[in-house]
Amino acid sequence: MIVRTTEEITGTERDVTSEDGQWRSKRIVLGGDRVGFSFHETTIRAGSTNEFHYANHVEGVWLVEGTGTLTNRETGETHPLAAGTMYLLDGHERHTVRAETELRMLCVFNPPVTGREVHDENGVYPLVTVD
Amino acid sequence: MIVRTTEEITGTERDVTSEDGQWRSKRIVLGGDRVGFSFHETTIRAGSTNEFHYANHVEGVWLVEGTGTLTNRETGETHPLAAGTMYLLDGHERHTVRAETELRMLCVFNPPVTGREVHDENGVYPLVTVD
Repeated sequence: MIVRTTEEITGTERDVTSEDGQWRSKRIVLGGDRVGFSFHETTIRAGSTNEFHYANHVEGVWLVEGTGTLTNRETGETHPLAAGTMYLLDGHERHTVRAETELRMLCVFNPPVTGREVHDENGVYPLVTVD
Repeated sequence: MIVRTTEEITGTERDVTSEDGQWRSKRIVLGGDRVGFSFHETTIRAGSTNEFHYANHVEGVWLVEGTGTLTNRETGETHPLAAGTMYLLDGHERHTVRAETELRMLCVFNPPVTGREVHDENGVYPLVTVD
């Protein structure tokens, strides 16, 4: 059994802020924990617009706080985001998240993020596996 | 892409209350979604004590609200539970969750729960796979 708190991982290697400062992701479970998924708390800055694409990962995102809009860039469809909304990127969809107020969401990745990925020039996380 | 809300799954087959009424689990992602994990919002009633054991699943639990105590029944160790605490049952540990106030937590299961499991006489979920 592993017990951790968001507070104790804050400011460590598990706490990653994007280069543009628009999002921050605290990874409380990573690939190195060897449970087949990673589990992150992500916050997105109020007023920001963010393009994401996980070509190598499925992601499930459940909103805890905030309001905004999700756009599926494959289809152009938009969805309102609020506490209780969940979106599941089961088809590796390119998507845009627009935050009206700060968004706080818990995110699951399969395969797990290892913590060593950096978004590439396309905003894609490469597939990195645990040695 | 699948988009759902906690509100729209409330009162459906995805919303399960324990026989004793002490916990309720809303499964927004299940095995049938075929992404390799399930994702649940579980609430545990204030003042209740609950024994759990997932012999066939790894579970990661991240507290969003409430206070209580987690006991690892394999070792007798106890841990305080509060918003931001995460526990990962990577060794299928028998454990007890005591809720001082109502606990609200987001939970990830690997392999995914299908929604057809019922806790057996030992409080264990059987392994059920999607056809």
